[in-house]
Amino acid sequence: MNKNIPEISLQRLPVYLNYLRSLSGDDKKYISSGAIAAALGMGEVLVRKDLAYTSGVGRPKVGYVRAELIAALEEYLGCNIRKRAVLVGAGGLGRALLAYGGFEKYGIDVFEAYDSDPSKAGTEIAGKPVRPVEELFQLKGSDVRLAIVAVPAAAAQSVCDTLSEAGISGILNFAPVQLKAPGDVVVRNIDVAANLAVLSNML
Amino acid sequence: MNKNIPEISLQRLPVYLNYLRSLSGDDKKYISSGAIAAALGMGEVLVRKDLAYTSGVGRPKVGYVRAELIAALEEYLGCNIRKRAVLVGAGGLGRALLAYGGFEKYGIDVFEAYDSDPSKAGTEIAGKPVRPVEELFQLKGSDVRLAIVAVPAAAAQSVCDTLSEAGISGILNFAPVQLKAPGDVVVRNIDVAANLAVLSNML
Repeated sequence: MNKNIPEISLQRLPVYLNYLRSLSGDDKKYISSGAIAAALGMGEVLVRKDLAYTSGVGRPKVGYVRAELIAALEEYLGCNIRKRAVLVGAGGLGRALLAYGGFEKYGIDVFEAYDSDPSKAGTEIAGKPVRPVEELFQLKGSDVRLAIVAVPAAAAQSVCDTLSEAGISGILNFAPVQLKAPGDVVVRNIDVAANLAVLSNML
Repeated sequence: MNKNIPEISLQRLPVYLNYLRSLSGDDKKYISSGAIAAALGMGEVLVRKDLAYTSGVGRPKVGYVRAELIAALEEYLGCNIRKRAVLVGAGGLGRALLAYGGFEKYGIDVFEAYDSDPSKAGTEIAGKPVRPVEELFQLKGSDVRLAIVAVPAAAAQSVCDTLSEAGISGILNFAPVQLKAPGDVVVRNIDVAANLAVLSNML
């Protein structure tokens, strides 16, 4: 969608957006790149460079109009475009993700789940239907391009293969394995335990 | 702990470790940096450079001895040193994290949880006790340095303050807010919704 921005800058845009949204009050109508940088513990030049990828433009002496900058970030991140996503693996983590309300503010609707356990099929979690994993292929030809994979490590590659065949082009993978996907499928990994191990090493 | 390695390389070490652990069979006694690079979709020079931070050394023509490389990565990442961690926020995500078995392979024991809901205090989740959040200060002086924050965004900063005062020096934060912590406290953020939004932008 936005091919010109480096991934590392793209990853920081939600951080700015979260911060700007967290401010409130009339005295927060304007905000400078220096104030954003100080609040987030980043360099001011980096902040200005990142924000320049969106249409957010600061004004001399005044800084950014906060509401305008929020709108620019939301537009750039596609928050106003509704995107449907599915979740595979309705275990503990999957259930928590289905109940999580945070996706909506990015325009993402995680609307249904798939699980290999037949006893879960036909049930609902957080108001979202759970379907048998065999029905994943029915996504083919639909508008669904995003999937969250929250299955055990041993099952993740097979789920990844099925999702790729079903036309999914973006996979957020929580299983602690490196997935092999076709070149036109983007995989992002969130390995919670590895993150905690890395954090422990940084102390 | 390992201050010489760049964070970006450190983050990749668990990826190598997961991959090497996933291999099996006698024909996998040796593995070359080229084979690792190809499997993970990375550059070979980068792989060699990353692995050189550990004591893993490849042999000409043969490559790395897989078991030795695994041991070197495990030692570097401190997998064999037991570290205790607490979790704050025993909601949906917190419960899933308490039940997750993946921390152990990094030597991390998430052994108890804290929650502000009095009805949860005194209960157990996945065999781990849930205590009132007011008791967090009791961690002061203990060997616990790691905490996972899985509370709602509005409560995260206050929890971060309490954890910092209680002597926690590493916080893995799932709340979609930028936490302000003292300089000697390291915070790593996992914003699941932002990750999915970034992924969507990369398609």
